Amino acid sequence: MRPMTTKPELFTALSPSLLNLYDLKDSIVVIIDVLRATSTIATALYNGAASVVPVDSVPLCIELGEQLGGITAGERDGKVADGLEYGNSPFEYPREFIEGKTLVLTTTNGTKLLHMALNNGAPVIVTGSFPNLSAIADFLIREKRNVVLACAAWKDRVNIEDTLFAGAVINRVREHFRINCDSSNLAEAAYQEAQPDLYEFMKSRDASHYHRLTGYGLEKDIRYCLTADGANVLPLFQGDRLIAVPAVAAVSAVPGS
Amino acid sequence: MRPMTTKPELFTALSPSLLNLYDLKDSIVVIIDVLRATSTIATALYNGAASVVPVDSVPLCIELGEQLGGITAGERDGKVADGLEYGNSPFEYPREFIEGKTLVLTTTNGTKLLHMALNNGAPVIVTGSFPNLSAIADFLIREKRNVVLACAAWKDRVNIEDTLFAGAVINRVREHFRINCDSSNLAEAAYQEAQPDLYEFMKSRDASHYHRLTGYGLEKDIRYCLTADGANVLPLFQGDRLIAVPAVAAVSAVPGS
Repeated sequence: MRPMTTKPELFTALSPSLLNLYDLKDSIVVIIDVLRATSTIATALYNGAASVVPVDSVPLCIELGEQLGGITAGERDGKVADGLEYGNSPFEYPREFIEGKTLVLTTTNGTKLLHMALNNGAPVIVTGSFPNLSAIADFLIREKRNVVLACAAWKDRVNIEDTLFAGAVINRVREHFRINCDSSNLAEAAYQEAQPDLYEFMKSRDASHYHRLTGYGLEKDIRYCLTADGANVLPLFQGDRLIAVPAVAAVSAVPGS
Repeated sequence: MRPMTTKPELFTALSPSLLNLYDLKDSIVVIIDVLRATSTIATALYNGAASVVPVDSVPLCIELGEQLGGITAGERDGKVADGLEYGNSPFEYPREFIEGKTLVLTTTNGTKLLHMALNNGAPVIVTGSFPNLSAIADFLIREKRNVVLACAAWKDRVNIEDTLFAGAVINRVREHFRINCDSSNLAEAAYQEAQPDLYEFMKSRDASHYHRLTGYGLEKDIRYCLTADGANVLPLFQGDRLIAVPAVAAVSAVPGS
């Protein structure tokens, strides 16, 4: 007989409104905002940004941008917000531009969710997106702790792309976790159905964010944000900012985590 | 050119925690609690029950049972609750037993959700389940009003079976509605994947309710509750109770609706 080992648990919160149903106190929380906040965070850090500071308002973005000497970025209704310098597209942050710099990024759904996780006592918070799928999956397998996959959704309404990313993570890590969570199993089923072509799935399933972004001419962004491992880095929240953790480092060795 | 007509809108709330995101004031709300409350309600009404009174506690169930001369029913942890006479299984309510009687049924998730819909001003509330799938779909198509499919879930956690039923309804009515709702599109995708064998899908996807009920020996209940049109009636909430509306009657003709 093989020895019985107790695997850690994994849950998925499909909307910020559902996050309070899960115990975050001993969990790694993965913040998921695929289009486009967490994809852009992964990309900026992968390309050498010193850190990304997520904030929830334009005034705070401007204030911290000045304080930290950082680049301010954020959009409202598909345009760079008044008073900020750059937008939400991952393509705005190539290495030659972002390396060594601090990016102060204002997002609504994702930042709100990150602060909720923090306030609910999550000891470890990382951000996930298709561009850093493998880094997230490898990290979760390595850490052997409980996990909550937290979807940022859209104004609390469940969205397709964040659900698909949760499903993609589950598809990679399933055997390492106990998953008594219908949301997780639905997310994986959706991902498996979508997997041949995530972009086509978004389009054929009439995803609301697909419409919103293609309305702004951002098909290229969507395709990048649905492609695995284009920016395979682990963004870990430390204090007030996200930093890139080298793939080999155990997070427990990072001060303050 | 064909004339442009504005179709009504359809949304899905995958959990009671998400119901407040949708405007119920001009919507038909379909309460969905597939395992087993809304399946049992359809069955009792189909078999001739005069009405089903949904209540949220055992003491209220006993009190109303006495007042109304009704049959009291409800379970806690898979057993008939102390002080009540019958359980939650649709098989307990054949015509020879339930015809002409009033069933006072206590459920937790479904009743709570129905009261939420009522308090949020829903003008028309019906209950849906696979046994009355066609009655629900036909009704929604006929009424041409906005619709919110409201899943009872399990203690606010999204569940597979209610999501699948929402998907089944959408699959039937899609062309008659505008559906700018990722939850609806995810639900339909899950249903389409599950459709060859809903029971097998529940089992293979490790549905939490599948485990809970099979643990009580209720495979037969699950199979019945996942089968379309075994009790094809329209349960409409009127005042404090659900009554069966004949398939041909327009709901606008029912007093008080």
